[in-house]
Amino acid sequence: MTISTDRNQQFQQLNRLIKDIDAGMLTTVDDDGSLHSRPMFTNNEIDSDCAIWLFTYASSHKVVEIEHCQQVNLSLSSSEQERYISISGSAQLVKDRNKLQQLWKPELQTWFPKGLEDPDIALLKVKINKADYWDSRTKFQPQTIS
Amino acid sequence: MTISTDRNQQFQQLNRLIKDIDAGMLTTVDDDGSLHSRPMFTNNEIDSDCAIWLFTYASSHKVVEIEHCQQVNLSLSSSEQERYISISGSAQLVKDRNKLQQLWKPELQTWFPKGLEDPDIALLKVKINKADYWDSRTKFQPQTIS
Repeated sequence: MTISTDRNQQFQQLNRLIKDIDAGMLTTVDDDGSLHSRPMFTNNEIDSDCAIWLFTYASSHKVVEIEHCQQVNLSLSSSEQERYISISGSAQLVKDRNKLQQLWKPELQTWFPKGLEDPDIALLKVKINKADYWDSRTKFQPQTIS
Repeated sequence: MTISTDRNQQFQQLNRLIKDIDAGMLTTVDDDGSLHSRPMFTNNEIDSDCAIWLFTYASSHKVVEIEHCQQVNLSLSSSEQERYISISGSAQLVKDRNKLQQLWKPELQTWFPKGLEDPDIALLKVKINKADYWDSRTKFQPQTIS
């Protein structure tokens, strides 16, 4: 996908906003319509396809939820920096050893003790449709990137 | 609603977990199925009806979303304390001057500059159906309260 310069600049701005925030909460929709969230570690970077990548276990319940409903929200917050970010997008499971190796960081060991040796380890690719953010610099007026 | 002693104890535990976390991200579902979140300030307390209360503007888009789909998720995270909480519930708008006065805190002025004088200020009552939490004490194994 080729993105316009304007959108590219907006996503570069989003990259700067998420740079220092390692953990987010990923919300998914269950079959009964209820919404669940759980902590997820990001690689703090949006790629050229406007996607953010998250490590997961392929057998986890959220992957079943995502198979049934791709819509997700990743919220990132830093109370010290008074910054709050909402990323709306669609998620898909990706099992790609090269990508896993490329994105792995030692900090992930806390959540994935067996690391890349775990046969269940996989990635969620969240394609970003829209992002909103609030911070003290803009007096908490919502700013939208879409 | 009368809740069982077990459940009561579990919600007391949840009260302790959320006590020091002022801001959460509330996720709602829009008409097209997309998920949005935004920062919300809590009063750090779950009441005897197993509900948590949040300040809002009655005219905000999230209230429209909630009128169409009551299911919400409130995620609370504290990276310093390494604690992450997911609260799944159903939300409803409540316009009750007494309740607003009872729950108002000066810190809310940042988000509601006109305070309780604003005719648009209202509350969201989130009735909790299920909560999950992760923290370093339980080695980030998910714990469920439902």
